[in-house]
Amino acid sequence: MRMIGVIGEQECSAETAAAAYAVGAGIARRGGVLVCGGMGGVMEAAARGAREAGGLTVGILPGTDRASANPFIAIPIPTGMGEGRNVLVVRASQAVIAIGGSYGTLSEIAFALKMGVPVVGLRTWRLAKDDPTAPPLPDPIVRAATPEQAVELAWRLSERAPGP
Amino acid sequence: MRMIGVIGEQECSAETAAAAYAVGAGIARRGGVLVCGGMGGVMEAAARGAREAGGLTVGILPGTDRASANPFIAIPIPTGMGEGRNVLVVRASQAVIAIGGSYGTLSEIAFALKMGVPVVGLRTWRLAKDDPTAPPLPDPIVRAATPEQAVELAWRLSERAPGP
Amino acid sequence: MRMIGVIGEQECSAETAAAAYAVGAGIARRGGVLVCGGMGGVMEAAARGAREAGGLTVGILPGTDRASANPFIAIPIPTGMGEGRNVLVVRASQAVIAIGGSYGTLSEIAFALKMGVPVVGLRTWRLAKDDPTAPPLPDPIVRAATPEQAVELAWRLSERAPGP
Amino acid sequence: MRMIGVIGEQECSAETAAAAYAVGAGIARRGGVLVCGGMGGVMEAAARGAREAGGLTVGILPGTDRASANPFIAIPIPTGMGEGRNVLVVRASQAVIAIGGSYGTLSEIAFALKMGVPVVGLRTWRLAKDDPTAPPLPDPIVRAATPEQAVELAWRLSERAPGP
Repeated sequence: MRMIGVIGEQECSAETAAAAYAVGAGIARRGGVLVCGGMGGVMEAAARGAREAGGLTVGILPGTDRASANPFIAIPIPTGMGEGRNVLVVRASQAVIAIGGSYGTLSEIAFALKMGVPVVGLRTWRLAKDDPTAPPLPDPIVRAATPEQAVELAWRLSERAPGP
Repeated sequence: MRMIGVIGEQECSAETAAAAYAVGAGIARRGGVLVCGGMGGVMEAAARGAREAGGLTVGILPGTDRASANPFIAIPIPTGMGEGRNVLVVRASQAVIAIGGSYGTLSEIAFALKMGVPVVGLRTWRLAKDDPTAPPLPDPIVRAATPEQAVELAWRLSERAPGP
Repeated sequence: MRMIGVIGEQECSAETAAAAYAVGAGIARRGGVLVCGGMGGVMEAAARGAREAGGLTVGILPGTDRASANPFIAIPIPTGMGEGRNVLVVRASQAVIAIGGSYGTLSEIAFALKMGVPVVGLRTWRLAKDDPTAPPLPDPIVRAATPEQAVELAWRLSERAPGP
Repeated sequence: MRMIGVIGEQECSAETAAAAYAVGAGIARRGGVLVCGGMGGVMEAAARGAREAGGLTVGILPGTDRASANPFIAIPIPTGMGEGRNVLVVRASQAVIAIGGSYGTLSEIAFALKMGVPVVGLRTWRLAKDDPTAPPLPDPIVRAATPEQAVELAWRLSERAPGP
C-alpha cells in the first residue's frame, strides 16, 4: 500500500484544517494509507478526511498511550519517544505533504530532505542559508497551490519508491 | 481495532512456523490487527497466517527500508532503530504472544512485563531470580498449550486495555 | 576511555545498594567510565561509588529533564524515550554488570546478549527455555560472587572491544 | 557540568572547520562539556578544539559502533538510531551552536526551537514562512558574528537551565 505522510501543527486555523481534510480525503480516494503524528490540528483534520473517504490511517504517537490518538486514527503506534517520533513519521512515508506548520513540522521537513523523501508544501516553511556570498538555494520543497495538487504531486513523487 | 503482537525469532523450525501461522490466522479471524517486527521466521509465518485469513498486518522494522519487510506486511513502519525498535513493537500491542524466541524476544517479553502489557507464551522463555533465599517468582507469562489457546488468552487479556 | 555499564532496579535493598556502590567504586579505580540509567536504586548507588572514587559517570535518562538524574551523574543524557533508553545504556557499554534487577534490567540483559556485549551478573536473572525436549541452555551470564569479582570480570571481558 | 551542543555538517570547508575548532576550544576553556553528533566535519573540528583545550567531549553517534566516533570524542554514545539520534544531541545540550549546516543540522535547529533549547547561529539556516499575508517571523536563532561571540552567547543563554 502507498503510504503518504501529512505533517503540520497541532493547533491550526479552520482554513488550514480544511486544507488538511481535503488532503487526507484525496490520499484515501487514491487508495493510499495516511501516515501522521496522530495528534490534533492538521493531523486530526487529515485523518478525518481520510477516514470519511474510507481510507486507512496510521498515527505515530509521541506518548505511550494509544488513547491519546485522535479519533480518526485506525492504527495507533504509541512510541513513548516524544518529538523523537518525528523521524519515524518521515521514515514511514513514501512522500510527505507539509501543511503550514511549526518547529515540529520543520524538523520533519528537514529529516525528509535529508533522507530523500519527497516533500510537497502547502503554505509551509521556506528555507535559506545565512550566507550572502552563496548562490540562492534552489527550493527543495515542491510547492502546491491547492490540496488536490498537493496530493497529485505527492502521489507522483512517491512512485519512485513504491515499497510493499 | 484490537492490536495483538506476535514476537519470536527470525529463524525458526517448521513446527514453530506452523504455530506462528496458526496464531496469525487466529488473530485475523477475530478481526484483530497483527503487530510484529516485520522480518522473517516467526514474524513472517504469523503475518502470512494473518494475511491469508484476510487480516491486516503491521511490521515495525529495524532498518530504514520498507522493502526489507516480509511480503505479508501490509503496513511497514521502518524505524532505523535496529533492536531498539523492539520496545515499539511492545508499545503498539495490547497483548503479545511470544513463540519460542531468542534474546530479541526476551527483550520484548521484559519490556511488556515492565509496561504491564499481557504476555502469552508458547514454548518461550522461563524466568527466575538467582537468589536462593527468595521465594520462587510466580510465572509472569500466561502459558498456552496450543496456538488457538494463545490467541484466545491474548484476546481476553487485551480487553482490559481496548484502545481506539 | 573504557565504559562499563551497571544495570539494576530503581528501588533496591541496602545490601544490593552496597554491592552497587562497591562496583561503581571499582570501575572508577581502574579508570573506567560508569554508564547507567541515571535514576535511583542500583544506578544511584553505583554512580555514588564511582564519583566518590574520583570517576566519571554517564546517566542515560528515560525523561527529558537533566535534573531528573541522580546527584552523582556527571554527564546526564536525557533521551525522552522512557524504557526505550535501555537499549542505549547497553550500546554505550563495553560490558555490563547486572545487580539484582527487575524487568527493566532483564530487557537490558537481553539486549546485551543479543548484541554480544558481555554480561556479568551479581544475583540477577536466570534464563531458561520452556522446552523439556531441548538440552539445558548454557548460562549466557558470567556469574560473579562479589562486587570486586564482578568488576574484574567485566573489565577483562570488555577488553575485547576496547573502543576509543 | 555545563553541556553545550555544536551542530553542523559532516563535510565542511576549511573556514567552517576553523570556526568550529574555535567554538570547541572556547567551550572547553569555560569548563563546559562539548556535545555533538560524534562524526566528521564540524563535529570533528569542534571536538578537536575542545580536547586540545583540555575539555571533555561527548559524541552521540548514529551507528552502533563506538569506533565510528571521530578521534577527539572522549565519551562515545552509539545509538544505532541513524538520523534519529539528532533529537538526542539536542536534548543533551543546554544550548546549541549551529555552524553552517545541512538538512541534518536543520532538523536539530528545529528540535531545539521546539523544545526551548537556545540556538546560536554562525552562518547557518534562515527560516521563513511561505505566507505572504503573515507578518515576518522574528528570527528565532541568536546570530553570532564570530566563534568567540557564539560561545559567549550560548554560555549566557544556557545559564537559564543549568542542570546537574
